[in-house]
Amino acid sequence: MFEVYETKVRITADNDAEAEKVREAMKEKKVFLINLMGSPGAGKTSTLIRTINALKDDYRIGVMEADMDSDVDARTIEALGVKVIQLHTGGSCHMDADMTARGLDRLNVDDLDVVFLENVGNLVCPAEFDVGAALKVMILSAPEGDDKPLKYPLMFTVSNVMLMNKIDTKDVFDFDPEKALARAKNLNPDIVPFCLSAKTGEGFDAWTAWLKCTIEAWRTEG
Amino acid sequence: MFEVYETKVRITADNDAEAEKVREAMKEKKVFLINLMGSPGAGKTSTLIRTINALKDDYRIGVMEADMDSDVDARTIEALGVKVIQLHTGGSCHMDADMTARGLDRLNVDDLDVVFLENVGNLVCPAEFDVGAALKVMILSAPEGDDKPLKYPLMFTVSNVMLMNKIDTKDVFDFDPEKALARAKNLNPDIVPFCLSAKTGEGFDAWTAWLKCTIEAWRTEG
Repeated sequence: MFEVYETKVRITADNDAEAEKVREAMKEKKVFLINLMGSPGAGKTSTLIRTINALKDDYRIGVMEADMDSDVDARTIEALGVKVIQLHTGGSCHMDADMTARGLDRLNVDDLDVVFLENVGNLVCPAEFDVGAALKVMILSAPEGDDKPLKYPLMFTVSNVMLMNKIDTKDVFDFDPEKALARAKNLNPDIVPFCLSAKTGEGFDAWTAWLKCTIEAWRTEG
Repeated sequence: MFEVYETKVRITADNDAEAEKVREAMKEKKVFLINLMGSPGAGKTSTLIRTINALKDDYRIGVMEADMDSDVDARTIEALGVKVIQLHTGGSCHMDADMTARGLDRLNVDDLDVVFLENVGNLVCPAEFDVGAALKVMILSAPEGDDKPLKYPLMFTVSNVMLMNKIDTKDVFDFDPEKALARAKNLNPDIVPFCLSAKTGEGFDAWTAWLKCTIEAWRTEG
């Protein structure tokens, strides 16, 4: 059974300095930390499940599920047979570097290669807090609309990857991936986009192949 | 042309006291203030448009569009011919009572009966800040999933009304309104639910009839 850990906010002087410490510690341990962000209901957990299934033969995977309260996602992830811990943020709307560091300690990453942090469902606040991840992945789902980069610019500015999820429903919601991407690239020319559907599985081959390449490059870069 | 007003966060000693002041001032002026909340892409603006169209023959309506940045929603609302102001929260993930009070001042509500505050798209932080509204309305869209009351309990606990939007797509997303409502009622037995679709218009007759009744009751209660 997974642990439920109450990671309430502690005031830390400098989140960025704390984040750098996390990043260095994870580099030292060769653990690739991924910060997964997105709105409530964007499909973070279901995207994570398909991603884990594509990676788990090659890597030892751990998951930190951050929620203000509840452990529904951790129960879902535990069923995959990967190491999981539920982090309760005590009402906080985001994870910060200190909370992440304490979560990693409790998870114990010594026997892991890749750790996913599923952040609190929120397109605003998590973007403001570097947690020390090697990769920031944000999910924009088609029902949310292709105008979201205009309204929540920071999330698209800081993320390395933009997963456009529920792409099978794009016609229902008049979601134009080209428009969404152009608006995101306007903020962040380096953002890497993938269209996929955690429901049908389409697009996951490309995303997980890219992710494996990226993890491998990181592991060998010294 | 509508104004863009930079309402950055000021530290106020007591948000609740400030909210009570807003509520009393609006009562005095007989202006019914509605705080509209929901995730990014839940359909706040499109729901607002249909609601305004149903109310604007009976009431003089004003709108405050809160966004961290951008004015796309204010431009959409202005086309309806109602008084609108764009509030820029300067990166803040929510509106508080002080920001609301300053927004109402700038909007000038003396010639208005009903004011909608479209809060920042966020299912977390806006729930924590009473802005002094007479009515708190939250939107949960079907694509977000019927488990959201379990994961974002405060929003469902503090809201008076729960609009289940995009209900025309519930089968696509296996969204069960009964389950969502049962979970919300478990937190807040008094929450008033409506199923609707801002795309097709279904359900708006019931919601706007209820809203008119509620506004009338509030205006006559002294």
